[in-house]
Amino acid sequence: MKTFDTTATGVYLITVTPFTDSGVLDLASTDRMVDFCLDAGVTGLTVLGIMGEATKLTAEESRLFVRQVLTRVAGRVPVVVGASAPGFAPMKELTESVMALGAAGVMVAPPSTVRTDDQIVAYFDMVQETVGPNVPWVLQDHPVATGVQMSAGVIQRILKNAPTCVMLKHEDCPGLAKLSAIRAASARGEVRRVSILTGNGGGLFLPEELSRGADGAMTGFAYPEMMVGVCRAFAAGDIDKAHDIFDAYLPLARYEQQAGIGLAVRKHILAERGVIASSAIRKPGPKLSAADIADIQQLTVRQLRRLAEIT
Amino acid sequence: MKTFDTTATGVYLITVTPFTDSGVLDLASTDRMVDFCLDAGVTGLTVLGIMGEATKLTAEESRLFVRQVLTRVAGRVPVVVGASAPGFAPMKELTESVMALGAAGVMVAPPSTVRTDDQIVAYFDMVQETVGPNVPWVLQDHPVATGVQMSAGVIQRILKNAPTCVMLKHEDCPGLAKLSAIRAASARGEVRRVSILTGNGGGLFLPEELSRGADGAMTGFAYPEMMVGVCRAFAAGDIDKAHDIFDAYLPLARYEQQAGIGLAVRKHILAERGVIASSAIRKPGPKLSAADIADIQQLTVRQLRRLAEIT
Amino acid sequence: MKTFDTTATGVYLITVTPFTDSGVLDLASTDRMVDFCLDAGVTGLTVLGIMGEATKLTAEESRLFVRQVLTRVAGRVPVVVGASAPGFAPMKELTESVMALGAAGVMVAPPSTVRTDDQIVAYFDMVQETVGPNVPWVLQDHPVATGVQMSAGVIQRILKNAPTCVMLKHEDCPGLAKLSAIRAASARGEVRRVSILTGNGGGLFLPEELSRGADGAMTGFAYPEMMVGVCRAFAAGDIDKAHDIFDAYLPLARYEQQAGIGLAVRKHILAERGVIASSAIRKPGPKLSAADIADIQQLTVRQLRRLAEIT
Amino acid sequence: MKTFDTTATGVYLITVTPFTDSGVLDLASTDRMVDFCLDAGVTGLTVLGIMGEATKLTAEESRLFVRQVLTRVAGRVPVVVGASAPGFAPMKELTESVMALGAAGVMVAPPSTVRTDDQIVAYFDMVQETVGPNVPWVLQDHPVATGVQMSAGVIQRILKNAPTCVMLKHEDCPGLAKLSAIRAASARGEVRRVSILTGNGGGLFLPEELSRGADGAMTGFAYPEMMVGVCRAFAAGDIDKAHDIFDAYLPLARYEQQAGIGLAVRKHILAERGVIASSAIRKPGPKLSAADIADIQQLTVRQLRRLAEIT
Repeated sequence: MKTFDTTATGVYLITVTPFTDSGVLDLASTDRMVDFCLDAGVTGLTVLGIMGEATKLTAEESRLFVRQVLTRVAGRVPVVVGASAPGFAPMKELTESVMALGAAGVMVAPPSTVRTDDQIVAYFDMVQETVGPNVPWVLQDHPVATGVQMSAGVIQRILKNAPTCVMLKHEDCPGLAKLSAIRAASARGEVRRVSILTGNGGGLFLPEELSRGADGAMTGFAYPEMMVGVCRAFAAGDIDKAHDIFDAYLPLARYEQQAGIGLAVRKHILAERGVIASSAIRKPGPKLSAADIADIQQLTVRQLRRLAEIT
Repeated sequence: MKTFDTTATGVYLITVTPFTDSGVLDLASTDRMVDFCLDAGVTGLTVLGIMGEATKLTAEESRLFVRQVLTRVAGRVPVVVGASAPGFAPMKELTESVMALGAAGVMVAPPSTVRTDDQIVAYFDMVQETVGPNVPWVLQDHPVATGVQMSAGVIQRILKNAPTCVMLKHEDCPGLAKLSAIRAASARGEVRRVSILTGNGGGLFLPEELSRGADGAMTGFAYPEMMVGVCRAFAAGDIDKAHDIFDAYLPLARYEQQAGIGLAVRKHILAERGVIASSAIRKPGPKLSAADIADIQQLTVRQLRRLAEIT
Repeated sequence: MKTFDTTATGVYLITVTPFTDSGVLDLASTDRMVDFCLDAGVTGLTVLGIMGEATKLTAEESRLFVRQVLTRVAGRVPVVVGASAPGFAPMKELTESVMALGAAGVMVAPPSTVRTDDQIVAYFDMVQETVGPNVPWVLQDHPVATGVQMSAGVIQRILKNAPTCVMLKHEDCPGLAKLSAIRAASARGEVRRVSILTGNGGGLFLPEELSRGADGAMTGFAYPEMMVGVCRAFAAGDIDKAHDIFDAYLPLARYEQQAGIGLAVRKHILAERGVIASSAIRKPGPKLSAADIADIQQLTVRQLRRLAEIT
Repeated sequence: MKTFDTTATGVYLITVTPFTDSGVLDLASTDRMVDFCLDAGVTGLTVLGIMGEATKLTAEESRLFVRQVLTRVAGRVPVVVGASAPGFAPMKELTESVMALGAAGVMVAPPSTVRTDDQIVAYFDMVQETVGPNVPWVLQDHPVATGVQMSAGVIQRILKNAPTCVMLKHEDCPGLAKLSAIRAASARGEVRRVSILTGNGGGLFLPEELSRGADGAMTGFAYPEMMVGVCRAFAAGDIDKAHDIFDAYLPLARYEQQAGIGLAVRKHILAERGVIASSAIRKPGPKLSAADIADIQQLTVRQLRRLAEIT
C-alpha cells in the first residue's frame, strides 16, 4: 500500500454510502463500490464525507460501514475517514475508533463559527491536540460548505503548528491563486510541503489545479476514471490529453455538481452502472424527476460518443 | 408529576452540563444542580440544549448525563431532552434511548439548510415521522442560532401536521408580534392551542411575553428564581411585582447573555453559588478574565441590594 | 425593435461597464461593446447588473453610461437596467431616470433581509408599487448572491400581484425543477406565462434550462455567440447542435465563472477580442496573474480548435 | 466646538431621520431633534447611519438632511456622516459632498464580502485612500450588521495604516475583551490611542464598556440623557451612580433594542416626547401594534417612577 503521508498523489475518491431502497445500509453494494473504485485506479478512499451522508448515520452504522470498507480494501489503498464534529470529545472518540479499525487517517473541516485568522488557527491547534501525535490528518478547506475563509497565510500557520497534518484538501472555489501561493511558500522554505488534493465541484478545475501544483484530486464523481485519467495524463506530461479527457466528461460532471440534487445524480449513475443496488438517499434528500433522468441519459450518450472520438 | 403536554406552564430550566476542572462529566454536581433547580421552583428541566454543551459530549456521556438527571429528578418534574440532529437516524436513536430512560419528551430545532416555508414544514413532517406517534415533542423556533425564520403561519402548518408536538419554545428575538399572532389563531380555532414557553436571551423579554400569552419560560439563567418569581407574580395577577422582580435581575441577566462568554458567566455564577463544583467549559469555549469576574461581582452586589429593596 | 414583454426570447446579455486603465468610464469602449453584442445576435441588453460593477459607479456615472448605451443601441433591442436598491426612494428615482432616457424596463432582486415566503411577497408588492403601473420589470431570482430562496409557489404569488412584471431572471442554481414547476403552473392556468431567461453561472445549464421551458438566457460571457448559437439551434429543434456548441465553449465558460476572478477573466477576454480598450476593474476587484492568463490562453486555443471541428 | 479627533469623549448620538406621516423628509422636526440632542448634552451627532434609514433616502434627500442638521447645529458639536458604500466612487462623492457642507468626518463599516484578516485590512487601506489625507473618519466595527469579525489585532493593523482614522465605533456584542485588548496595546505603545465610542444595542453594556476604557457612546436611544448621565457620572468617578442611572433606563432600552421593531419604538417615543412630529418609517419598515404601544407606556411609567426614586 502507498503510505498516507505528505507524498500522497493521485485520486482519493470520496465515496457514497449505499443504502437499500428501504434505507438500510447496503454492505454488499459497499463491497462492489470498493472494487469499482480500486478497478478505476484510485490511490485512496475517503469515507463519511458530506457526500457520504455521514450525518445521517447512527454511530453504530458509521462503524459498520467503515469496517466493511476497510475489510474489503484490505490494505490495498489508504482509507481516510471524515471526522469533523462540533465537539472534540466526539471527534476524539470517532478518530480512535476508526484508527483502531485500520483507517489511514482522518479529515477535519472547521465549524462555521470560527471566523478570524486567529480563531481558525486556534481551532486547528485543538484538532491537532485532539487527534494526537500518531494520527495523520487532512485539513479540509471548503468555504462553500463551511463559510470559513482560510487565507494561504492561515493555512501555513496551521501547518506549522500541526506536525501530523499531511494533506490539504483544497476546495476553495477554485482558489487557483491560493494553491499557487501555498506551493510558492513551500518552495521558499517557509512551510513544509504537504500533499494537496483538490475537490472543487467534483474536480471541475482539476487540470488547472494540477498545473498549479496540486498532487491529485480528492472528490466524488460517478466516473472516477475521469480524475484518474486526467491525473495520469498530467503526470505523463501530456497536458493536452489531460484536457481532452476532462472536457469529454465535463458536461456530465457539471450536471452532477448541481446544488441540491448532485448526490442523487451521482447515486443514480452509480446504480445504472451496476455499482450500487439502489440510488436511495436518506431523508432529507432530493429525488430525481423524469426530466432529470432524461437529462442524464442524454448527457451519458453524448459522453460515450465523445470518449470514442478522443481515444 | 405535572404531565408534559399542551397545558405545561411555568419554568423549564435549560440546564448546564457540569464538568470537573479537568473536563470530566461531574455527576455529583449534576445531582446538586437538579436539587438546586427543583428547590428554585422550576416545573420542568431541559437538558442537552446548546447551553448544555450537547455537541461536546460523546454519545455515551450524553446517556450517562441524562440517566443521572432522570434518576435524581425521580419523576418530580418532566425532563425534556434536546434531540436536534443533522440526520433522522441519529435523532431516532437518541429519542428512543432517552425515552427508554424516562424522559418526558424531546426538543427539535430545524437545521440551517431549510429556508422556504415549504421546506420548513416538510422538515418537521419528517421530525414527526421520526419521533413517532408516542413521543411528545417541543418545536424550537430559534432563528438567532439556526438562521431559520418561521412565520406564525408556518408554525400553524407544522402544528396541524404534528399531533404529538405539545409545545413551542419561542426564541424569536423577541417576536412578540408572532406570539400574539399564534395565540390569536388558536383563539379563532384555526389551530390547536399548545404550550408556549419562551427563551429569548435568558428570558430578557419574559414579562412582555407572558402578557402576550406565553405560558412560561424555557431558558437558562444562573438565577432561575427570577423566572419562577416573574411567572408566579404574573399568574397571581401582580404585573407590577413581576416587573419589579424582573428589573432587579435584568442588569445581571443582560450581562449573562453576552454573545461568546454567556455560558462562562453562567457557570461561574453557578460555581460561586455552590451549585456546581467547577465552572469548566469544554473546548472550544471561552474563559472569563479578571475584569469579567469583577463585573459579575459588582453586578451581583447591586442585585442583592436591589432585591432587598423590593421585598 | 422586439418589444420587452412577456414574449421576450433569446439572449439578453449582461454587459460589463468599460473603464480606462485609470478607472475612468470609457464611453468609446461602451459603443464598441454595444456593437459587438448586437453583431453577436443578442435580442436585448441588461446593464448595471452585479457584473456591471453598478455599485462602484456614482449616480452621475450611471446615468452617463446608460445614456451612452441607449444612444448607441438606438432602439434596435430593448435595454433593461438593474434597479435593485436597499430603499424604495432611490429605486424609484433610478427607475424614473432610466425610463426617461429610453430604457425598456428595470430588474429588481430582493435584499438579503427578507426570508419568509410572506416577507418576499410583501417586498415585491412594494416593488410593483414603486415602479408603478407603466414600467415593465424583471424579477431576479438569484439566491447565490442574495441568500433569498424563492419557491415556485412564491414566484407565482409575486406574479399574481405584479401586473407589469414581464420576466423572470432565473438564476437559482440550477433550479431545473423550479423552472419546470413554474411552467407547469402556467400550463394549468394557475398563473400567467411570463418570459423566463436564465442566468446560472454564465449559462452553465443553458441547454437543460431551454428544454425545461426557458425562453433564453440573460447572463454574461465573453462569447455571447455561445448563448445565441445554443438558443438558435434549440429554437430550430436541433438539440444535438445546441449541445455541441455549448460543450465547445463549456471549458472556458466554466473558467470564466470562477468565484472571485470571473469578471476579471471576462474583461480580459473582451479586451483581447478588441471589444473594450482596457480590462480594468474598479477597486475592490481582482487582478489576473500570469498563470491565470496562461490558463485563458490555453483554453482559448483549445476552444478555437474544437469549434473548427464541429462546424 | 470640541474638535472631532482622537480625544473625543461623551455621547455622539445616532439620530433618526424624521419624516412626515406621508413619508416626506421633515425638516422642521429635524431642527427640533437637533435642539433636543444638544439640550440633552450630547458631544456630537452621527447622521445617516443604519438607524437613520440612510439607504431609503435619495442622494438629494441625503444632502438636504445633512445640510439642515449642520445648519441647525451651527458648529456647536461635530457631526459625523455615515459613508459606508458598496463602491469607492460613491463613497468618495458622498464624503466630499458632506465635508464641503461642514461635516466633521465620516464613518465607514466594511461590506459583508470581506472575511479574512488580510481582506479586512486591505479594504480599509482603500477606504483611507478614498477619503484622502484630510478627512477624519470613524472605523465602525459592527459584526451583527456586517457579518465581519475584526480581531483586536486587525483593528491595530488598520489603525497603523490609516493616519486620519480618529475613532473606533465599537459595536462588537459586547466585545469587552476586545476593548480591553485594544486599550492594552495602546498602553504598551503598539498602536496609537484613538477615541473609542461604543454602540452595542443602544448602549446596553455602556457602564462595563466605560470601565474597560471606552471614551463614551455612539448610539441611539430615545432617552439620550441616559447615556449622557452614565458618561458624566463615570467621568466624575461615581460608578454606582452611573449604574443607577443605567439600570433605571435598562428595561426600556432593552425593549427599544428589539430586532425588527426597534426603530419604530424609538420614533414612537420621540414623537411622544414631542421631538419629532411623526413616528413614520419609510417602507420597508415595521409598524407598532396596540400591544407594543401598551408595553412602551407601561415601561415609561415605571421608568419615571424609578428615576424619581434614585434622584
